[in-house]
Amino acid sequence: MASSHDIEEGLTLLPKFDADGLVTAVITDAGNGDVLMVAHMNAEAIAKTIETGEAWYYSRSRKKLWKKGETSGHVQRVQELRVDCDQDALWLKVVQEGEGACHTGRRSCFYRAVPLGQTGAVKLEFQNAGKVFDPDAVYSSKG
Amino acid sequence: MASSHDIEEGLTLLPKFDADGLVTAVITDAGNGDVLMVAHMNAEAIAKTIETGEAWYYSRSRKKLWKKGETSGHVQRVQELRVDCDQDALWLKVVQEGEGACHTGRRSCFYRAVPLGQTGAVKLEFQNAGKVFDPDAVYSSKG
Repeated sequence: MASSHDIEEGLTLLPKFDADGLVTAVITDAGNGDVLMVAHMNAEAIAKTIETGEAWYYSRSRKKLWKKGETSGHVQRVQELRVDCDQDALWLKVVQEGEGACHTGRRSCFYRAVPLGQTGAVKLEFQNAGKVFDPDAVYSSKG
Repeated sequence: MASSHDIEEGLTLLPKFDADGLVTAVITDAGNGDVLMVAHMNAEAIAKTIETGEAWYYSRSRKKLWKKGETSGHVQRVQELRVDCDQDALWLKVVQEGEGACHTGRRSCFYRAVPLGQTGAVKLEFQNAGKVFDPDAVYSSKG
């Protein structure tokens, strides 16, 4: 078994998968640094992403390997892939093809801000929440 | 129970906690957009972060609420907090006090790149891997 030193300071990719065989993937826009989405990858998604330079994920809801953009055409070309200290998270800097990364039609999944400096119930605020594509049209073949 | 429309399009914060009561938190540098770390938050960590504007997390290994910087002094001042479409992930844009966010002594936890366009065993490459503080000195009180 790999030591914590091997995992943190070594040059071997040793993903620390969770009980479901997944690691967390953070996807940022290579252009402006915005976080576009958070997804999950299994061993096969990691291997296919490394091999092809395009982003593959594992869908927890659909329980299957999934190429980003396979339905929408909104493929993500990976400009840089990084792994974190304990190797349970990956960071993909991507060029997002098409209009948006979010299935709701937005550029980013993070289109609501949480106001700070308060206690109790919180009212979110839309930020960059304009839809850049029509999800009903793009995903109409999902049915 | 909240509908998927309420969760995705509503203005009520309804975090979708996993079986351990946690959501994923992505922390980026408000200055340059780099991903500094990935952490986890429980309901209390979210509430304290919103209230104080400083980042609190839940440590899965130590099984406790944890204020970033409580040992190292490397506090994170939250400039903006966002929630994603299905509310199982938060994005914190922070001003990182002190030298670095990573317990290994680096600015970011993502100090190794995974080369793309290959199959089989992968050799990582250090990127921005210089240590900006001495973890042994900073965490010496950890015991």
